Amino acid sequence: MRVDVVAVGTELLLGQIVDTNSSWIGEQLAAHGFDSLLQIKVGDNLGRVESALRRSLADADAVIVCGGLGPTHDDLTREAIAAVMGVQLEIHDDVADRIREMFTARGRYMAENNLRQAMVPVGATVIAQTRGTAPGLICPVRIDGVDKVLYAVPGVPHEMKEMLERAILADLHRRSGEVAVIASRTLRTWGESESGLNERLDPIIAELETLGNPTLAFLASGWEGLKVRLTAKAATAQAAALVLDEWSARVHAVVGQHVFGFDDDTMESVVLQMLRERGLTLALAESVTGGLVAARLTGIAGASDVLRGSIVSYASEVKFDLLDVTRGPVVSESAATEMALGARRVLGGTLGMALTGVAGPTEQDGAPVGTLCIAVVIGDEVHTTTARLPGQREQMRQMSVITALDYLRRILPTANV
Amino acid sequence: MRVDVVAVGTELLLGQIVDTNSSWIGEQLAAHGFDSLLQIKVGDNLGRVESALRRSLADADAVIVCGGLGPTHDDLTREAIAAVMGVQLEIHDDVADRIREMFTARGRYMAENNLRQAMVPVGATVIAQTRGTAPGLICPVRIDGVDKVLYAVPGVPHEMKEMLERAILADLHRRSGEVAVIASRTLRTWGESESGLNERLDPIIAELETLGNPTLAFLASGWEGLKVRLTAKAATAQAAALVLDEWSARVHAVVGQHVFGFDDDTMESVVLQMLRERGLTLALAESVTGGLVAARLTGIAGASDVLRGSIVSYASEVKFDLLDVTRGPVVSESAATEMALGARRVLGGTLGMALTGVAGPTEQDGAPVGTLCIAVVIGDEVHTTTARLPGQREQMRQMSVITALDYLRRILPTANV
Repeated sequence: MRVDVVAVGTELLLGQIVDTNSSWIGEQLAAHGFDSLLQIKVGDNLGRVESALRRSLADADAVIVCGGLGPTHDDLTREAIAAVMGVQLEIHDDVADRIREMFTARGRYMAENNLRQAMVPVGATVIAQTRGTAPGLICPVRIDGVDKVLYAVPGVPHEMKEMLERAILADLHRRSGEVAVIASRTLRTWGESESGLNERLDPIIAELETLGNPTLAFLASGWEGLKVRLTAKAATAQAAALVLDEWSARVHAVVGQHVFGFDDDTMESVVLQMLRERGLTLALAESVTGGLVAARLTGIAGASDVLRGSIVSYASEVKFDLLDVTRGPVVSESAATEMALGARRVLGGTLGMALTGVAGPTEQDGAPVGTLCIAVVIGDEVHTTTARLPGQREQMRQMSVITALDYLRRILPTANV
Repeated sequence: MRVDVVAVGTELLLGQIVDTNSSWIGEQLAAHGFDSLLQIKVGDNLGRVESALRRSLADADAVIVCGGLGPTHDDLTREAIAAVMGVQLEIHDDVADRIREMFTARGRYMAENNLRQAMVPVGATVIAQTRGTAPGLICPVRIDGVDKVLYAVPGVPHEMKEMLERAILADLHRRSGEVAVIASRTLRTWGESESGLNERLDPIIAELETLGNPTLAFLASGWEGLKVRLTAKAATAQAAALVLDEWSARVHAVVGQHVFGFDDDTMESVVLQMLRERGLTLALAESVTGGLVAARLTGIAGASDVLRGSIVSYASEVKFDLLDVTRGPVVSESAATEMALGARRVLGGTLGMALTGVAGPTEQDGAPVGTLCIAVVIGDEVHTTTARLPGQREQMRQMSVITALDYLRRILPTANV
């Protein structure tokens, strides 16, 4: 069953509010096995709202329209729905009474225009409001001889979510008679380009295109690496999980060590867990990343089990005086090694890691923009590497964080601890 | 001129990524005087992308399509545009060479499918890529006898924004033939709520509603504070600037010290500049923010003139052993003071600032979630304060950074340096 979404509100088009409602609704629909193939944002204009509703109903089985149910002159959704249904609006006295009561109970004066929220298209049923003043609507409508349905919900997120969960999803299931479940699993990768992954996975992609289920998609997430998302449709949650297990294992086997986690895992949550499992504590020294590595790790509740802290040795003198780095060029694997040893000594901890590099705009110590030197010291072992990252300042700094954490992730399994 | 937006990506419909691109584009279009009346999200399906482009071009003068320009089999935007234009795709050798160079410069293997990004619809021009591998496209297309244009940009936000600012907005102005200049000035504020600002500015807002030009809008930007944006339309850039000067000064006078900067200023760029002007150098000690303050400051090129570094003393023992904080509760103004003195001693510098607080989920040392203690030491002066911030972990950490930098900003003018 296809369920598309129309979000009403000029502020959405002007970028004053980001449309998170459509995203959330789309996520719920997918979790319940409904396809949402088109989502539209339209402003507070009666003609354009009506047109958006008509176009969505032409292709979808059901449409959820979100917003424009308030009391002001900008709130046009009821009128637009009535036009699409070809009916009048009529006042529902019980709804009007409920609205009056809500104001009385809060000791507030009720402006008359609130009663516009008690107007209902003839033939529609009301979804009683619990949180706001506007009720939702379930509006059966016949389009080109086919019975369809239009659901109207308020634009205020917590009001909308409550009505969707309480009334609309159940109504959709009733109408669809379908039993399908849709589930996804995402493999998080770092270290291979999108096109490289695509190439490795070509045989699997070809098989899946023939099978049709599951589907495989690549999602780039900025500097968070590349995700490979498998989406399976099946009769039950268990059956969907089995399909995902099978194909996830096949993709993992092909992509190998570039996979650092699944679903909601982040590079930092994975690395913290690996350190925790091995009883290791981490001391950091950062320069070019200026605290971003520690900031990422401390974003995870429970990081304090593992992370001692970080010395952000931004000024060169701090490297020399506090961390005992040899005076001289500071963008090198040997400087990074001294920084890591210095951090471990100053902060305590069993493992030290340091990053030093050049974010730009100018090169430093003969090292070109984008150079990143990483050192990890564990016991008496010293591991170092140099990476070449893109030259845009913020991009270089953010990618340095993940590159360094990924380097640590790959070293740990074979380190002598 | 009407410019609608199509965002391509199944992950948008599934709610895995929120469509912030359309919102940002809509905001830029509005600031430049273009109407955006419909914005669509569609999945990675060739037929539906083509259909969405055709429908948008039927009603708009120009369409910006965002996403689907990568190298993988899911990336269909080029093909969809070519179908709408009724042309073939051809390879542009200079684009292909540039893509190859990008991989070579980073010492990376280039999978062949990257060259799909060098395919261009016949008749379209290329917007050279600077940050990612995919170029953008400017595609003139004739719809029902009317000349229109389709702009394609990558879905990766920083790539999209850069291309829109560099190439697309100027092209739209050129095509619109409008002689008016639209210019904006934004006052960045921190420390007053949106309804508080609105109330203070009521008289000015009323005057502007009568005048019609300039317009005033409030933009909330998450934890970056509240922006008051004035937008003026005039015959020349100088005339627009004069209007903005006049009203910006009036708004500033009313809002006062809550204004920390203008336009692209950030709290950190403003504070760095104030420190630089006073010849001060800064040593930081952070705990709850885990390096975020130093990371923000080091994001600004030239921060090294001012910032010595940061001691991210995440484990309590590091506070006691390295910073000489008295053993005991660490979430207090006195602990913050000792941290600030310790940071200044260990890192060098004329000014020390420290943050200690409770991000959650549990309280600490008797301090409730959301507590932030800040201390600034300048010469022999000690300044401290305690703030109460929202209890959601990441929100609390991010707001702590701005709150502390704002505190420093307000202290500096009267400090004895």
